[in-house]
Amino acid sequence: MARKLLLDLDVGADDALAIAYALGGPDLELLAVTAVFGNVSQREAQENAMSVLDALGARLVPVHPGAVGARGAELPWEPDPSVRRIHGPRGLGRWRPPAPSRRAEAPTAPSAINRLCREWGSELAVVATGPLTNLAAALDEDPDALFAAGSVTVMGGAVSCEGNVSAVAEANIAADPASARRVLESGLPLTLVGLDVTMRAFLPRGALERWRDAGPAGEALAAIVDFYMDSYEGRYPGRDGCPLHDPLAVAVARDPLVVDCVPMALSCETEGPLNGRLFQRLADLPRARKPHAVAMDVDVDRFLRDFEERLERALRGR
Amino acid sequence: MARKLLLDLDVGADDALAIAYALGGPDLELLAVTAVFGNVSQREAQENAMSVLDALGARLVPVHPGAVGARGAELPWEPDPSVRRIHGPRGLGRWRPPAPSRRAEAPTAPSAINRLCREWGSELAVVATGPLTNLAAALDEDPDALFAAGSVTVMGGAVSCEGNVSAVAEANIAADPASARRVLESGLPLTLVGLDVTMRAFLPRGALERWRDAGPAGEALAAIVDFYMDSYEGRYPGRDGCPLHDPLAVAVARDPLVVDCVPMALSCETEGPLNGRLFQRLADLPRARKPHAVAMDVDVDRFLRDFEERLERALRGR
Repeated sequence: MARKLLLDLDVGADDALAIAYALGGPDLELLAVTAVFGNVSQREAQENAMSVLDALGARLVPVHPGAVGARGAELPWEPDPSVRRIHGPRGLGRWRPPAPSRRAEAPTAPSAINRLCREWGSELAVVATGPLTNLAAALDEDPDALFAAGSVTVMGGAVSCEGNVSAVAEANIAADPASARRVLESGLPLTLVGLDVTMRAFLPRGALERWRDAGPAGEALAAIVDFYMDSYEGRYPGRDGCPLHDPLAVAVARDPLVVDCVPMALSCETEGPLNGRLFQRLADLPRARKPHAVAMDVDVDRFLRDFEERLERALRGR
Repeated sequence: MARKLLLDLDVGADDALAIAYALGGPDLELLAVTAVFGNVSQREAQENAMSVLDALGARLVPVHPGAVGARGAELPWEPDPSVRRIHGPRGLGRWRPPAPSRRAEAPTAPSAINRLCREWGSELAVVATGPLTNLAAALDEDPDALFAAGSVTVMGGAVSCEGNVSAVAEANIAADPASARRVLESGLPLTLVGLDVTMRAFLPRGALERWRDAGPAGEALAAIVDFYMDSYEGRYPGRDGCPLHDPLAVAVARDPLVVDCVPMALSCETEGPLNGRLFQRLADLPRARKPHAVAMDVDVDRFLRDFEERLERALRGR
């Protein structure tokens, strides 16, 4: 029986790949996408989610509107030019999608998340690849529902390595540290897939040629990812590829053995120069309860093989 | 056959316990101690090493003088009052040892380290529990000798957790970040035993009663550690014990399975507000070569049982 999947996304180039990965096999059933600000504005995130789902033949997957800015923020988030240079002018690189076939659906993300957790319980995998604003709001609204899910997997953080928006902070966490702290300190068991592992999972540019041969959906993904790879080439010359941040999080929800995890009890700095840094408190270290499985190593070959197979299936029809 | 052991120490309460642990069984043969500034001045470190070795009946183990301050420092290091409050006025808590039976021996620490590495090769385990100044100087003097050792184990760092001298830095690394960086970036394979695990390995105060029953050496160790536990009680009320930072590093050299390690390629910040922070560079993450086994989890029960057994043997004669 297929595992049910809810994706909380800020679509985004690698979020688009996470959708394709999720659709690339009968063992996952994508029930809904909730859209959050982050790589793009919230409005762009939900439109991009619908466009990517449409292109991949998944017009029936509902998209629910989520947070437009960080916990407590007064204004909607608009990504600055440095973020636009990574994901493209509207978040989907060089792809210009047609208008989505439908609109975002009620209820809003926190209720949609809680409702699916209540409905499907241990059969549901929740994967969040943007700021944790929607998950924190879901916990505020119903402190128990997320605890019923089969798993909660988060792409975010940099535990052993530099961050990508500061020396200590990764973008998803830094975009809303208060929500990250709310989620981490809730005691909710979750798997954290951070830069420690995602920066190892590089897709080489050669993969895009195979996608282009697979028709319009493949051409769309290639146009998204080609731009994204250009931005990484500027920062990591000679690699000629891009890290698969968000798809790796979905892969971990499907196949936990693709990473090696360490049990931790993480919190998050919410101010000052260390804003967005994840860390364990020294006073917490001796405690037995460590709710977070933090991915510290990844079987890159196993993941890339699986990723390419699933993309192939998603693009050529299942 | 006993594994040969070289200890590089800044003695220090938990360094004294590391010596006792090392002497507590026939499977380790302590060949030498090299003394480095850190918890105390270098002069105190070498005198304390001799006093503890004398008390434990190990008068023949040579002590070699090492660095008096950090790489490139112009003045010898003197610990400030906050450090004195942890380890006591001379580094050994409430114990007032008799004058050592002998003097420190030639050569100085870097040469002694390299000579033993060349002589014993894979039979030698090197364990460093202070600033990495002596190890860095050994690499400067002979870039290959340490690579011949069977293992190099370092107590230091805080990878997933807060530091103990700043939010990001652990004391041994912060005392000489340039040497830490020199050692870490040399490519030397080493096992890092940091606060991530040592802060979990708490010895309860009840152990001291058993030591006191074991005669003068036990009374000495209890007087050292009782003071150390008082300082931890001030910082972590209700725990009533102390972390076994340095003994855990020696235990890992003897029994690597007492910790779970993650392969990493670490460097060290050497300036600014993140001074002394260990981290992996994002650009290094995809590389295959990860010379550092970083302890991220510890089997506390296994270690404490082993520690108490070895202390018992060290105190009652082997």
